[in-house]
Amino acid sequence: MLSDFIILRQLTILPFFMKHYNTTDIAEMDKIFRLNLINSCTGYKSANLLATRSSTGKTNVAVFNSVMHLGSNPPLLGFILRPDTIPRNTFKNIKETGVFTVNHIHQDMIEQAHQTAAKYEEHISEFHKTGLEEEYLDDFFAPYVKQSSIKLGCRYLNEYHIIENDTVLVVAEIEHIYFEEGIQMPDGWLRLDDAGTVAINGLDGYALPALLDRFHYARPGIEIKSFFKEEKTKK
Amino acid sequence: MLSDFIILRQLTILPFFMKHYNTTDIAEMDKIFRLNLINSCTGYKSANLLATRSSTGKTNVAVFNSVMHLGSNPPLLGFILRPDTIPRNTFKNIKETGVFTVNHIHQDMIEQAHQTAAKYEEHISEFHKTGLEEEYLDDFFAPYVKQSSIKLGCRYLNEYHIIENDTVLVVAEIEHIYFEEGIQMPDGWLRLDDAGTVAINGLDGYALPALLDRFHYARPGIEIKSFFKEEKTKK
Repeated sequence: MLSDFIILRQLTILPFFMKHYNTTDIAEMDKIFRLNLINSCTGYKSANLLATRSSTGKTNVAVFNSVMHLGSNPPLLGFILRPDTIPRNTFKNIKETGVFTVNHIHQDMIEQAHQTAAKYEEHISEFHKTGLEEEYLDDFFAPYVKQSSIKLGCRYLNEYHIIENDTVLVVAEIEHIYFEEGIQMPDGWLRLDDAGTVAINGLDGYALPALLDRFHYARPGIEIKSFFKEEKTKK
Repeated sequence: MLSDFIILRQLTILPFFMKHYNTTDIAEMDKIFRLNLINSCTGYKSANLLATRSSTGKTNVAVFNSVMHLGSNPPLLGFILRPDTIPRNTFKNIKETGVFTVNHIHQDMIEQAHQTAAKYEEHISEFHKTGLEEEYLDDFFAPYVKQSSIKLGCRYLNEYHIIENDTVLVVAEIEHIYFEEGIQMPDGWLRLDDAGTVAINGLDGYALPALLDRFHYARPGIEIKSFFKEEKTKK
């Protein structure tokens, strides 16, 4: 039914209906409906697996859609912890050992990545249950995910308690970066669609982005320049 | 040259080379190279235009790749301000008036969106310079971007100073949500690829995601279930 509607809409037989929800509507929504709506209305999210190891050697890996760039000098990232829903082992291990890894989710591992969100008992490693493999690089204490072709070794720096909804922003420094050499452009930029990295739509939708264009620094009064069109002109 | 290498790599004639940068490598990088690398290594980012209006009626619109979901009840989002590089008018107007809008960037507006990053004089509105149009809905003080088919009216709640790199996390409540009705699934979820919403790769790459799959809640010992495969079976 819904797909029929979308086809009709695309044929522009039906007009576009603009739906509006206000504060009262949002407050009165069914919990799951609101969860799906609010999680998807801010746009795409990064798709990463955070992996840790406890001081006694138990490993843990969990899907996160909240890893964000915080700054490049020093190289910082952040992620949001939700005390009521998060896989608590991840945070416990980070506080114990100071380190964790961030591993990209690629198109061929979305089922395995999503399965890490299941609430396994504390003594069970999601690595063993999902087919994701541990990998240890350059004596870093936390495991990387072998299947990921972009991975970061990170050290906990600080946390900020967000009082508005009792969540925590964790701030960490990126100490190691690993990636397949061919996806890096000469100016440092990693072309994520060459790695098959996915993005998350809401809580449970996995989407594969394809690069449309990349633009040079914008300046007033100057037309936006594409990296790729410029290359073509040069040739 | 680079594209030739990628073709060769895809034919698996060349092996995959794993590149590694450590803390020292990152610290010693050229500034722009590090900026491109660190901005792209954490995965895809949301692509939004933040629009504001000063108390004297001057409007402002600027591209942001840091808008993030913070929680659904209450409906909260956040974004990161970089005091040295951000379009300061946005923050000044938010502090003056308490409100701003978040408008999705779609595939047909990426040039216009990127152009808003140019440093125009304070009295010049990026709306006038880029062809993006202001739209006022339900007496909300801040303008929406007419071309966006998903837009949020937001109210400033708080800010957190991140001391590690002197940035600011702004926390806001979502008061209004507008979108084209056809992109919403019956469980509240907005299917962003039906809206042509893009994701940002680094600072300046715009990518169009296509949905691969959407999964039900994960449970230990139960195979991951797809929303769409289940629908097929029902038919």
